[in-house]
Amino acid sequence: MAEKQAQTKDYGHPAHPRRAREIARWSQEADVVVVGLGGAGVCAALEARAAGAEVLVLERAWAGGGTSMQASGQLYMGGGTPLQKACGFDDDPEEMWKYLVASCGPGADEEKLRVYCERSVEHYHWITGQGVPFKPSFLPIEVGTDPYTDDGLSYTGSELAWPFCEIARPAPRGHTAQQVGENAGQLMMEILLRRAVEAGVRVVTDALCEPLIVEDDGRVAGVVARIGGEEHAVRARRGVVLCAGGYIHNKDMLARYAPRTRRVRFRLGCDGDDGRGIRMGMGAGGDAIRMEAACVVVPFSRNRGFLKGVLINEHGQRFCNEDLYQSLLGEIGLWRENGRIWLALDDEVYEKPQLPTQIVAVGETWEEVERESKLFAPGTLSRTLASYNEHAARGEDPLFRKEARWLKPLTAPPFVLLDLTLEKYPFWSAFTLGGLHTRPTGEVLDADSRGVPGLFAAGRNASGLPAHGYNSGLSLADATFSGRLAGIAAAKAKG
Amino acid sequence: MAEKQAQTKDYGHPAHPRRAREIARWSQEADVVVVGLGGAGVCAALEARAAGAEVLVLERAWAGGGTSMQASGQLYMGGGTPLQKACGFDDDPEEMWKYLVASCGPGADEEKLRVYCERSVEHYHWITGQGVPFKPSFLPIEVGTDPYTDDGLSYTGSELAWPFCEIARPAPRGHTAQQVGENAGQLMMEILLRRAVEAGVRVVTDALCEPLIVEDDGRVAGVVARIGGEEHAVRARRGVVLCAGGYIHNKDMLARYAPRTRRVRFRLGCDGDDGRGIRMGMGAGGDAIRMEAACVVVPFSRNRGFLKGVLINEHGQRFCNEDLYQSLLGEIGLWRENGRIWLALDDEVYEKPQLPTQIVAVGETWEEVERESKLFAPGTLSRTLASYNEHAARGEDPLFRKEARWLKPLTAPPFVLLDLTLEKYPFWSAFTLGGLHTRPTGEVLDADSRGVPGLFAAGRNASGLPAHGYNSGLSLADATFSGRLAGIAAAKAKG
Repeated sequence: MAEKQAQTKDYGHPAHPRRAREIARWSQEADVVVVGLGGAGVCAALEARAAGAEVLVLERAWAGGGTSMQASGQLYMGGGTPLQKACGFDDDPEEMWKYLVASCGPGADEEKLRVYCERSVEHYHWITGQGVPFKPSFLPIEVGTDPYTDDGLSYTGSELAWPFCEIARPAPRGHTAQQVGENAGQLMMEILLRRAVEAGVRVVTDALCEPLIVEDDGRVAGVVARIGGEEHAVRARRGVVLCAGGYIHNKDMLARYAPRTRRVRFRLGCDGDDGRGIRMGMGAGGDAIRMEAACVVVPFSRNRGFLKGVLINEHGQRFCNEDLYQSLLGEIGLWRENGRIWLALDDEVYEKPQLPTQIVAVGETWEEVERESKLFAPGTLSRTLASYNEHAARGEDPLFRKEARWLKPLTAPPFVLLDLTLEKYPFWSAFTLGGLHTRPTGEVLDADSRGVPGLFAAGRNASGLPAHGYNSGLSLADATFSGRLAGIAAAKAKG
Repeated sequence: MAEKQAQTKDYGHPAHPRRAREIARWSQEADVVVVGLGGAGVCAALEARAAGAEVLVLERAWAGGGTSMQASGQLYMGGGTPLQKACGFDDDPEEMWKYLVASCGPGADEEKLRVYCERSVEHYHWITGQGVPFKPSFLPIEVGTDPYTDDGLSYTGSELAWPFCEIARPAPRGHTAQQVGENAGQLMMEILLRRAVEAGVRVVTDALCEPLIVEDDGRVAGVVARIGGEEHAVRARRGVVLCAGGYIHNKDMLARYAPRTRRVRFRLGCDGDDGRGIRMGMGAGGDAIRMEAACVVVPFSRNRGFLKGVLINEHGQRFCNEDLYQSLLGEIGLWRENGRIWLALDDEVYEKPQLPTQIVAVGETWEEVERESKLFAPGTLSRTLASYNEHAARGEDPLFRKEARWLKPLTAPPFVLLDLTLEKYPFWSAFTLGGLHTRPTGEVLDADSRGVPGLFAAGRNASGLPAHGYNSGLSLADATFSGRLAGIAAAKAKG
């Protein structure tokens, strides 16, 4: 345990690149060297190999998989995939793009989103072509947003919720590989990893990469890796593809770039998500962007009936429609409400929370709840509820236009206030979204937006599709799709 | 004009460093080379010179001054300065630090704030020792926050406003050089620039710096400068100090790092604020942090009486106390309210706005204003006002605890709603706060938080005291104080 602690506190020093002229001996070489064998790395390797390149993957863990292997396994795809059609849903790339631009927040990469939406159906065929199965059945939103069943298709965002339902025609776009009992990310990764071996991708595990190796003109020539306790210089004839994940497990980086996210204690990612790949790229001249951005999830709606409750901020006000997707609520809850949110329920709506939390106050009236909670100014929470109830009784929510199926006046005592604050509700979770600035095709750019020759990045090692807003499945989308493109670009790069 | 346009669109390519081994001839050299002669640069030069170094400053404009020269000239200092004492105010470093940590928002650099608060009185003596005069008189907040008079001391933040008045004992800390008719920044800079010449600092103007020059081991050896149409390699024996300002005038950088700030059209800074110095530092391995942060100002309170109005968000809700300082309102208005805010006034409070804006709606009742505006759901704005008025009549603001002197029920018709939205109210202004990651003493750090040998940064070229919250005077504080420390560190660095 002490060892583990020591290890996680040492984030290494990959930002200081090594000079190619100082390398006495290259111990290995390949056309394309991929750093990290998660979702991005395996797809980069597969496509680079398919393009005819000799490919070597260096993975720091004892086996491939990365964070994708731990993922629940939703892949955000759309624009009219065969699975969407089989389940009876219409979709097209334009509607998908409009939705993603709006829901992925200020700073979403519109160009990357454009390419992804236009090629999403092709990407579906590629993924299924690798052998990943999707069951042609739809999981209705009333049942859940997390894939506990083996249904292939579900809503994994705020497509049905206001204002998005007015911005783009809704369609479910969460594609989950068919799997029972285990997380679907594991199934997908096992299939892709097997494919990579079959395709002749060379994999070296227990290989911790540290700095990149650069020529005098700035071109990336390879990477230093510690394998079996020894330092090896690995040459990349065409390019290095950084696929080493995000940085949610690096507290120093969180403090520097994303101090708000640092407050979220449940951090999603495999051990390797310490930002090493991002720092390797920065050291070689790569620019890191959107570094403050993160996916933040507040999963109060595991109890679907809780959508009939009312979310309250520290001023006793409502602040959003309760049927927004859990990751958009996280974004708003952290950046707008500073982590201070509560859920108001009445007796008819209340049920035992699937994710336990504290009851802040109970009362026979909302005034009593307001008073007991000692949280709100007199006449704030109670007026908010009075107004909500008045409208809900008419099936209306003029303020935030929550869907009618979730509207019900909260008028059945006793009334309850549940604590969802970041400090008290331990189920807030997060992972980082910022990373190296890349072209949609994967080339890493420097601070002047010019390419760093020989360097590519994908998955969470790069800044991808979302910024200040998230939908589940976008990280596997980024991993698999940007991984593919970066692999192709690296294979075609001039050495 | 076409030339000017072409020039401002070409942000150069300073991020790709030059190799020292490739420099055929060094045309100039000095112990310390300072890039940029604004407030940070001149203080760096003065202190490096005082420490015995030979100092060369390279300035891209035809004369020194930079953005500090354009500033209204408030310097945030405190902890018990002679000026504070002369005006009858008690202050100490601890209260100052508590206030700044709270008001400079998530991500404020607590260590830099600590050093600054502890040395603020010393800094006051240094500034006045250079000959900068402060008139020992206090400008009451009822009169204004912008220094239109020659009074030396004023509140330039939210010290008196809730919740800050409960966090730290308030004191005014805006120190403005005595000047009538011109902005005080100009006076201060003219004095400091004269001092630099007297002290033997060499200055070359019309010298546009592009990349840094680095040794094979990463040490910064100098800088490339275009002087008189020719490229010169300038060697720094001890260190280069980057003092080339922020990046508010670089649209590409705003799009990459601060897409929200990009929406603010009135951008504060001299022509040189195109982020060149930040990119030079990044190219040499420097890490840039807090790049999404900016000072955003919404100056509705030029009419002091407007503090008696009520600020409204797009949900018809209040969202903060109206007596928060204008730059904190800007932060909240942009990040929390997405630039969509309005001001509600009654006939007694209304007066012609000093900064003209549109009247959205007028009515004999708040219900009528709500309806006419077509902006809010029924019963939102009107209930907000009803609640506000009820409490204000008792001299209370339980929701946001606005100071009693600004509380008055808005019950005198006709009622008015003024447009303060980012899209319609053109007086929102902004400048960037993100920059190179430095130690409090000015050394630039890489992405592993290790020093880049030979490289220093100060002022807006570095990430300074504030992050997601701003008080006027902090930029001149950062410029002058961090400039001084970086100059000293560079002069003492091992060559």
